[in-house]
Amino acid sequence: MIETPYLLFLGDAPDQLAAKVAQGIKDWRPENAVGQFRLPGCAADVGLTDMTLVDAKAAGARTLVIGVANRGGVISPAWKEVLIAALEMGFDLASGLHNLLRDEGDLIAAAQTHGGTLHDVRVPTVGYPIANGVKRSGKRVLAVGTDCSVGKMYTALALDDSMRRKGMKSTFRATGQTGILITGHGVPLDAVIADFMAGSVEYLTPDNDADHWDIIEGQGSLFHVSYSGVTLALIHGGQPDALILSHEPSRPHMRGLPGYALPSLELLRDTALPLAQVANPACQVVGVSVNTQHMSEDEALSYLAEVETRMGLPAVDPYRQSADKLADALAAL
Amino acid sequence: MIETPYLLFLGDAPDQLAAKVAQGIKDWRPENAVGQFRLPGCAADVGLTDMTLVDAKAAGARTLVIGVANRGGVISPAWKEVLIAALEMGFDLASGLHNLLRDEGDLIAAAQTHGGTLHDVRVPTVGYPIANGVKRSGKRVLAVGTDCSVGKMYTALALDDSMRRKGMKSTFRATGQTGILITGHGVPLDAVIADFMAGSVEYLTPDNDADHWDIIEGQGSLFHVSYSGVTLALIHGGQPDALILSHEPSRPHMRGLPGYALPSLELLRDTALPLAQVANPACQVVGVSVNTQHMSEDEALSYLAEVETRMGLPAVDPYRQSADKLADALAAL
Repeated sequence: MIETPYLLFLGDAPDQLAAKVAQGIKDWRPENAVGQFRLPGCAADVGLTDMTLVDAKAAGARTLVIGVANRGGVISPAWKEVLIAALEMGFDLASGLHNLLRDEGDLIAAAQTHGGTLHDVRVPTVGYPIANGVKRSGKRVLAVGTDCSVGKMYTALALDDSMRRKGMKSTFRATGQTGILITGHGVPLDAVIADFMAGSVEYLTPDNDADHWDIIEGQGSLFHVSYSGVTLALIHGGQPDALILSHEPSRPHMRGLPGYALPSLELLRDTALPLAQVANPACQVVGVSVNTQHMSEDEALSYLAEVETRMGLPAVDPYRQSADKLADALAAL
Repeated sequence: MIETPYLLFLGDAPDQLAAKVAQGIKDWRPENAVGQFRLPGCAADVGLTDMTLVDAKAAGARTLVIGVANRGGVISPAWKEVLIAALEMGFDLASGLHNLLRDEGDLIAAAQTHGGTLHDVRVPTVGYPIANGVKRSGKRVLAVGTDCSVGKMYTALALDDSMRRKGMKSTFRATGQTGILITGHGVPLDAVIADFMAGSVEYLTPDNDADHWDIIEGQGSLFHVSYSGVTLALIHGGQPDALILSHEPSRPHMRGLPGYALPSLELLRDTALPLAQVANPACQVVGVSVNTQHMSEDEALSYLAEVETRMGLPAVDPYRQSADKLADALAAL
């Protein structure tokens, strides 16, 4: 559990895209961030108040979150200076970088001296159990994709937002580093040891109120040969009551796999649903989320209407529109 | 390399299945084991002479191999007493447990004092790549099960034996601790980090002669919610040309999962084959292996005949009979 609220470190981000973790926190959990910290030359701005460490401390910030990708996989001296100063002032640090905070001797030393915690959210810190398959109370929904990186996390966060606005009980359950930094907790599933994958998802989504929905962040795809095992562990550990099919229509082939075609939404449905019903026989496919970023507004609306007719399911682009239709479908279950 | 011959430690195994590591060594490399060591209450017996450490030492044993699974992942005080005594007598220790020998301070100390070696065969020693899905030369066959522990490893080892006797080129590729202890190499798949599972299987089964068969040891089951992700990574990383369906007909429910029924062989076929064809569109189901250990000879033969008729595939119990029919089916591909 990462202590909130955060000060978001944007460093010397070369462009807005480099700060997408910070942007995600600002977009989805603005209450978790008191402000942003930028170094000279920073080209990103997530629209929060610029603060010094002293300002942020006074505003109640507990953790400095690295919300930017580092160039070359190295924590630069300019960054290091700020990170050490933050530890000296009593901040914790949190990072999803490949280059771990805990691999930096000077950060470890400063954290020990000042009683701070270094959170490397890519690394599991819990001894997860082996999945036991016991049916849990409460409801769960999972987005499964025709491919990796088609918008499953965005769909889950948008669905959480819609469900809250509608007065439904929901919790976004992060399974990747960005989601973990946004919400302060979760399971870094792609870094979990194989035997404990499904168990880590059971751990992440425990018994809950009968009318509460866990919205589980999806990973990979059953059709992506590099990561499909992670996806099936999510399906069986999560024992979802509802699946959402996620798709990005412009892909020429599976991400990183030339020669591998994307499955149709029908094939995804017919593959994922029977597998999900192994863990939860009542599971249903309730809707489709489409990432239409490469389409015009007209093209997108036309595509979504066609999918709705063809699949007999509500279809939305949660970024262009909202996930309200998907939330309604869950409420109707 | 682990020094042979072994004394096989069965501990306080609650049932025969818990000792499958020891059973596998005894069945496939009997020349490597001088005897078995059992604690009071042990419910397993692999059919070797019961020996004390002193007996085994006198018989030439070099390594005490932990041939039993420990429930809960903890090395108990009763086990520890034997392991330390073995180190004091000059044995090495070898283990495939999740709970590593090298994580136990008293075992490390005893090994250092007495010059013994601690072999944790479950620990990956290679930085595996992320799977790239590129088609490899040579042929591959994989057994997929209706459940865990239905005889997939036996099937693979028996098939290797049959194919060699028939003059075919084959290599048994171990993916679990038993197979690694038997053959001395392999990938400890259930201990691999999630993102690298499929890549480790690609690494294990590289390009080979066009007429060479890798016989990949299966793990888990697509229908076992605790381990299904590992199974799918094997299917997609292994890109098999041929699948064998493995079954044990007497199970009341999935192993360790009360309330979860076993799938039919037809459902296993219809689930596994389309998933395998994602990575290798030419994949075929070529036969069935049945573990008939709980049937009489007549019952077993009758059952196998019924399966052959029903499935239209050769069906054998490779332990009772041999895997010759399966090898013939592969040769005919």
